[in-house]
Amino acid sequence: MIELTPVLDDKGDKPLYIQLANYIKQEILSGRIKREEKLPSKRNLSQYLGLSLNTIQSAYDQLSAEGYVDSRPRKGLFVAAIEEDINSNRYYPQISEAKFEQLKANVKIDFNSGKVDLEHFPFPIWRKLTMQSLYADQSEVFNNGDPQGELLLREQIATQLFASRGVRCNPDQIIIGAGTQVLMCLLALIIGKDKFYALENPGFHRTRTVLQDLGVETIAIPLDENGIYVKGLKNSGAHVVYVTPSHQFPFGMVMPISRRMELLKWAEDYKGYIIEDDYDGEYRYKGQPIPSLQGLDTRGNVVYLGTFSKSLIPSIRISYMVLPATLLTKYQEHFTIYKQTVSRLHQNTLYHFMKDGHWQSHLNKMRTLYRKKHAILMSSIKKDFGDKVNVIGENSGLHIVLELKNNMQENELINSALKVGVKVYPLSMYYHNSQECMGSKVILGFGGLSESQIEKGIRLLKQAWEL
Amino acid sequence: MIELTPVLDDKGDKPLYIQLANYIKQEILSGRIKREEKLPSKRNLSQYLGLSLNTIQSAYDQLSAEGYVDSRPRKGLFVAAIEEDINSNRYYPQISEAKFEQLKANVKIDFNSGKVDLEHFPFPIWRKLTMQSLYADQSEVFNNGDPQGELLLREQIATQLFASRGVRCNPDQIIIGAGTQVLMCLLALIIGKDKFYALENPGFHRTRTVLQDLGVETIAIPLDENGIYVKGLKNSGAHVVYVTPSHQFPFGMVMPISRRMELLKWAEDYKGYIIEDDYDGEYRYKGQPIPSLQGLDTRGNVVYLGTFSKSLIPSIRISYMVLPATLLTKYQEHFTIYKQTVSRLHQNTLYHFMKDGHWQSHLNKMRTLYRKKHAILMSSIKKDFGDKVNVIGENSGLHIVLELKNNMQENELINSALKVGVKVYPLSMYYHNSQECMGSKVILGFGGLSESQIEKGIRLLKQAWEL
Repeated sequence: MIELTPVLDDKGDKPLYIQLANYIKQEILSGRIKREEKLPSKRNLSQYLGLSLNTIQSAYDQLSAEGYVDSRPRKGLFVAAIEEDINSNRYYPQISEAKFEQLKANVKIDFNSGKVDLEHFPFPIWRKLTMQSLYADQSEVFNNGDPQGELLLREQIATQLFASRGVRCNPDQIIIGAGTQVLMCLLALIIGKDKFYALENPGFHRTRTVLQDLGVETIAIPLDENGIYVKGLKNSGAHVVYVTPSHQFPFGMVMPISRRMELLKWAEDYKGYIIEDDYDGEYRYKGQPIPSLQGLDTRGNVVYLGTFSKSLIPSIRISYMVLPATLLTKYQEHFTIYKQTVSRLHQNTLYHFMKDGHWQSHLNKMRTLYRKKHAILMSSIKKDFGDKVNVIGENSGLHIVLELKNNMQENELINSALKVGVKVYPLSMYYHNSQECMGSKVILGFGGLSESQIEKGIRLLKQAWEL
Repeated sequence: MIELTPVLDDKGDKPLYIQLANYIKQEILSGRIKREEKLPSKRNLSQYLGLSLNTIQSAYDQLSAEGYVDSRPRKGLFVAAIEEDINSNRYYPQISEAKFEQLKANVKIDFNSGKVDLEHFPFPIWRKLTMQSLYADQSEVFNNGDPQGELLLREQIATQLFASRGVRCNPDQIIIGAGTQVLMCLLALIIGKDKFYALENPGFHRTRTVLQDLGVETIAIPLDENGIYVKGLKNSGAHVVYVTPSHQFPFGMVMPISRRMELLKWAEDYKGYIIEDDYDGEYRYKGQPIPSLQGLDTRGNVVYLGTFSKSLIPSIRISYMVLPATLLTKYQEHFTIYKQTVSRLHQNTLYHFMKDGHWQSHLNKMRTLYRKKHAILMSSIKKDFGDKVNVIGENSGLHIVLELKNNMQENELINSALKVGVKVYPLSMYYHNSQECMGSKVILGFGGLSESQIEKGIRLLKQAWEL
């Protein structure tokens, strides 16, 4: 039944039936009650509003007389068809997505770095385990859970994180959350908004935004070929540094062991915290494996941030952080009041997926697959672009930075690519000040594209950029 | 395969094989490599680490000689069983949940206000629709979606929110998020952290914490029998007020239309925003329906916060807010950089659930069910407690406040209830200063209990409190 919520004044000038009729009229005119919709029966409305049947009858008669409603014998009262233009909503801006959608439709090949390969995702297993979770002890999975996240899932993460990334922790240290931004926000509150945060420049814009929106003081530290410039960090006076050592975002360099040790030394000397965001560290194509900063840390100065967005699928929104002892204590003292943000159903499904070994084998499969896609991308670039470009950050991860030697501006590169149906991405937005971005560079993600799409995309880019 | 990430120094004092053996030894001793676990084959590890087969062989021989690993013919090398106590993790505090679990196990009847009735949740339909979503266009549901949330779901919410709560909005105004705290945090950033926020006292502690943790200035406004005291609000100088008009949390009064109009007038006169948290407004037992503040607002001064935690299930973590035009503009200008926090699979499932009419019929069913449970609760209280108690806030929602006339302290009430296996909840935590909480009062939620549990719980409380 339509829930009518009129404000009636029984001491008012107008009789109740007129007030009710006017209210319903207004609802019809505003489009809130749709045409052809059935009005409640007189008896129901009378009970619902606590008004007499007579009042309802009079109000309905009034509406009928004015042509707002039609009576259909033995069926009831229906809203009459009224001019469409009365129905438009005057108060709120309508966002026209038409233009955007049109452009999107023309994009044939999208080098989006946020996408992953879905063709090889083990849907049947995921479906089966989702079903199992839905059938499992329902009263448990459907009420609120542990604010840190499900213990069983945290146990799996603790075990497998060590195996895949060399992270050393126990499940109590892990906090699950619906994405890196949710966790970064919580983390900044735990560490303290009065602290001074150093960020890679260029670096991950979403983290920068969270911190700046929280009103936290931040400073941009430049990079050299090994990652964040530690001398700059030392001089900055920062208490906390956020880094992406496995695959710097966006430049893609892998931080060598020497730089990692330098960074850990900084944390020790300056009593600082390092936030290590390992967003796609599972994928490595060249060089020896390097342990995570967290795994190398013996002083409890590192927070490790991980996500299943790249190693599984982005849309289930499961990330996690590993807190060192000092921050864990602060979390437990105050922050368990923040409810868990990830669905228990997904947590439970992921737990089974990991426990049964599917995550490891998916990861192994994906490593091979991305290695292949990466090789295709590199060979296509070599074949079609030759020495007219440099590739930056090609040792790991799911994207590269392409530097052109043709002096085209970033927006020219992006727009001319769009004209041939290819979407490539800007680098400038990752700088604290976009004007610091020099040269002709764009970002190409390849995780979500097939091998033939990658080849075709590069061919089209050659054409677009006239290389 | 176990991913080993040793840091080896080929210019160091010790030969590489010793360095590798020492590393593996350390991993075993620390418990990071578990006993009985199989080590990688020599060939695999050699390829993986880029070391010669000889080096690996020598390292394995060393470990074998020292008793850390056992060779099993034709099966490989396995970690030997080592004393358990070596495996303990020295660095991090182990949280002992034993005591808590023990207490929890003794709780037979839990008057938790966060729980809902799960027995009548249409699991078969939800499972079917979840499956449909999992089979649907996979490439769509599994990549990242719209930061505001899925448009199809927002359309359903806009339509049905009007029908069930009288909220007037179009889908563009709706932002979906993983719980009220996530949305409150985002909302405070949109409205501005420099603004001054008035809160009901007592009021919802999780919102208060979010705002205070963000460093926002807050002021506690007392309540009278109609809800927040608007004169106090006027004198406070606040720019924003957070209220729970459908069922004040925790006291449960329904804000009458006159007070609502007063509050809207305040917003108009003081150019303020009202945040209307309608966390369980779907359930009303007495009195006429009163439109939501958002529905009464003609000036665009109200933000409406809703959730599916009470009207569906808490664990899927889906809430939403409806922004007025001014705040929507601010959101679109800057805040779409915040990724959506709710799984697309759940959003898609909920969309179908709503579209097919299941949400409305579930809500109707639940209204009848909770009305019955509520009636049982009230009659049990009357029968067992007679005039020794007052019931506060019994007109709507899924909890009541019980005031005893026996002068017992809050913690005495809770502890003596626990001794007979019944959990009731404190009121004092909802006050800005817990010492403001006067008299003998506790909170009883009834949504998650069966009728017989409610009756039994009240009988046990009579015994515990010696009424």
